Amino acid sequence: MRDVSIIGIGQTPVGEHWDKPLRVLGVEAILAALCNAGVDRPEALYVGNFMSGQLLNQENIGALIADHAGLRGIEAYKIEAACGSGAAAFRTAYMAVASGLCDVVVACGVEKMTDFVVDETSGTPMAASATGALMAAADADYEAEHGLSFVALNALLMQRYLYEYGYQRQDFAGFSINAHRNAVNNPNAMFPKKITPESFARAKMICEPVSLLDSSGIGDGAAAAVLASSDWARAHGLRQVRVAASAVATDSVALHDRDELLFLHGAYLSARKAYAQAGVGPGDIDFFELHDAFTIMAALSLEADGFAERGQGVRLAMEDAISLSGRIPISTMGGLKARGHPVGATGMYQIVEATQQLWGEAGANQLTGCRLGMTQNIGGSGANVVTHILERVE
Amino acid sequence: MRDVSIIGIGQTPVGEHWDKPLRVLGVEAILAALCNAGVDRPEALYVGNFMSGQLLNQENIGALIADHAGLRGIEAYKIEAACGSGAAAFRTAYMAVASGLCDVVVACGVEKMTDFVVDETSGTPMAASATGALMAAADADYEAEHGLSFVALNALLMQRYLYEYGYQRQDFAGFSINAHRNAVNNPNAMFPKKITPESFARAKMICEPVSLLDSSGIGDGAAAAVLASSDWARAHGLRQVRVAASAVATDSVALHDRDELLFLHGAYLSARKAYAQAGVGPGDIDFFELHDAFTIMAALSLEADGFAERGQGVRLAMEDAISLSGRIPISTMGGLKARGHPVGATGMYQIVEATQQLWGEAGANQLTGCRLGMTQNIGGSGANVVTHILERVE
Repeated sequence: MRDVSIIGIGQTPVGEHWDKPLRVLGVEAILAALCNAGVDRPEALYVGNFMSGQLLNQENIGALIADHAGLRGIEAYKIEAACGSGAAAFRTAYMAVASGLCDVVVACGVEKMTDFVVDETSGTPMAASATGALMAAADADYEAEHGLSFVALNALLMQRYLYEYGYQRQDFAGFSINAHRNAVNNPNAMFPKKITPESFARAKMICEPVSLLDSSGIGDGAAAAVLASSDWARAHGLRQVRVAASAVATDSVALHDRDELLFLHGAYLSARKAYAQAGVGPGDIDFFELHDAFTIMAALSLEADGFAERGQGVRLAMEDAISLSGRIPISTMGGLKARGHPVGATGMYQIVEATQQLWGEAGANQLTGCRLGMTQNIGGSGANVVTHILERVE
Repeated sequence: MRDVSIIGIGQTPVGEHWDKPLRVLGVEAILAALCNAGVDRPEALYVGNFMSGQLLNQENIGALIADHAGLRGIEAYKIEAACGSGAAAFRTAYMAVASGLCDVVVACGVEKMTDFVVDETSGTPMAASATGALMAAADADYEAEHGLSFVALNALLMQRYLYEYGYQRQDFAGFSINAHRNAVNNPNAMFPKKITPESFARAKMICEPVSLLDSSGIGDGAAAAVLASSDWARAHGLRQVRVAASAVATDSVALHDRDELLFLHGAYLSARKAYAQAGVGPGDIDFFELHDAFTIMAALSLEADGFAERGQGVRLAMEDAISLSGRIPISTMGGLKARGHPVGATGMYQIVEATQQLWGEAGANQLTGCRLGMTQNIGGSGANVVTHILERVE
């Protein structure tokens, strides 16, 4: 199996891009990444996306975006793993290069959520709303059917966590404060605004105990990376970040089917595979771009991945061990919480941001001396977990 | 790069499975394939599916189906390339094994089209109809927006073909007659019923010149294959079919963006790549499971892939060169036309049926002495084309 490296990255700002259709967002990120790599004709494009079918009645976006990026003819298709789609596309791109089938490929995550198809006669939406579409990540027959939203599923988890381990809602404030603090220096972030413990305390409640400031904001955006075989990149004198590990694992989709409600078994398996492939452990990871769609997901991810004992994940936020100067920096460019969460694109934003850190291009948020960064992208309430470990190459 | 083989296959009948949810169809095909291979725990599952999000508000079906198949924890996600999704999932599975990342994986194509989510209060469908959902394979902004259906797009192509090359509608009858004749001996076919030139001539017109008997029928179904490294299969003494080539290529999604309306450039590129990888040409192919979603697609595929000159594809049907005893047998188990076209599953049905032929398990439709079979699965009107060449292993 060949070593694989990232040789170029690109991203659009996350936000409400009312003026840009899905394909344009994808094209912008892809062309930026190709330009960054100095490559003009990759052999394949793998597009991570969750809800273009539901919201825009547009599938087949692999071919569509390849064509509009000037790449008509190349291999291209879409990868879907709910909110884990972006990193699953990167995983697929990784396999294409690792196998030797391709030397240079592009992975792109793209989502357009602030627009949907409307019936022109009646004015009623013909497709699901973003909130409705998000429920397609859960079990349609056994969860969505009962009227649960995705916030509600996370509220169940957080409520149980508070009850089992004896915490207060306010103990989660540190996750949100850290994310917003880091977003201030990210020009692509949707919510680059500091928040305080007080604003967290009085944040509007969405679904007890999940408040607005426990929740990531959905948006539009695209992020892309060019991958090449490490040998090819070296032969062409290109800078690179090595993909030291790529792993996917799953869990049941429905929460009620799990053996343990408060342990993300899929994340545990995914991280364990990644650590084994890279030959490292959590203590070797310099920073962690985790899936903080909700503050409870951040806490549970830290526990499943070996950064904290069970019931102790939230302590890392309370002790500010997750800040840029902390023991395990997370969400270094704002995370899902404050960079924004364009669902199928998020996994690629994590990888692009980790590459920025490893290349020393993270601006005011630059970590000093980082060598290994981990990204973890989750689809559903921990049902699909894609983990990558990226390594700086001197 | 490692050699990859198919070591087990499974399929459900294609039809209207009102009693079986999507996940059950997928599980049935996967368990049949695992049982056929004698394997109980594959390392990954790649699910090809086109419209579960639109019709069932259910995405994340990689994890969902893995769990319900008793495979909770393994790598799993969904692949989408419109009606080419099934073979694109197989392509992804191929890369997972070829790379050395996995020894044994499963590819499954599944679609559930005769059911959709209905608002319980108003009784109105909350999601698209199958016909509406199919349009997500076309360009939503420039084709669907104008009210074109997928039949209409193919009618435009067929009308132009008749005009350019001077054929009559009836000249296409052979494609449909051949497919229905072969379906009679396929217990999994949806329309196992012979038709005649007369019934073709008087078939109900759907969109001039495309009649009901030019069109494949949509349905529910799932098909799956277990893939392993050829060395692993040999070491375990398993029978196998070698994947001699796996290729994907694309074209513009919108018909109006193409340089030539009557040449499937994506199919041409895809087949050319596949021929190069296998070191063969169209003359070496013993049978061809092509994408006869419409009779015009069969004719255009034969031309793009080198089995006929431009404007001559339909002659192969007129001369019955496509029958089981013909020069290039196609749709040997009924094809999309008569086996049925559960869109995201179709590509996997093609691969399963080609494997049946190469293993000598095609029953009354068995081709004698076949060694190389080609499958070609198309998403959109030729926008996404996935070609595989499978080889008998003695």
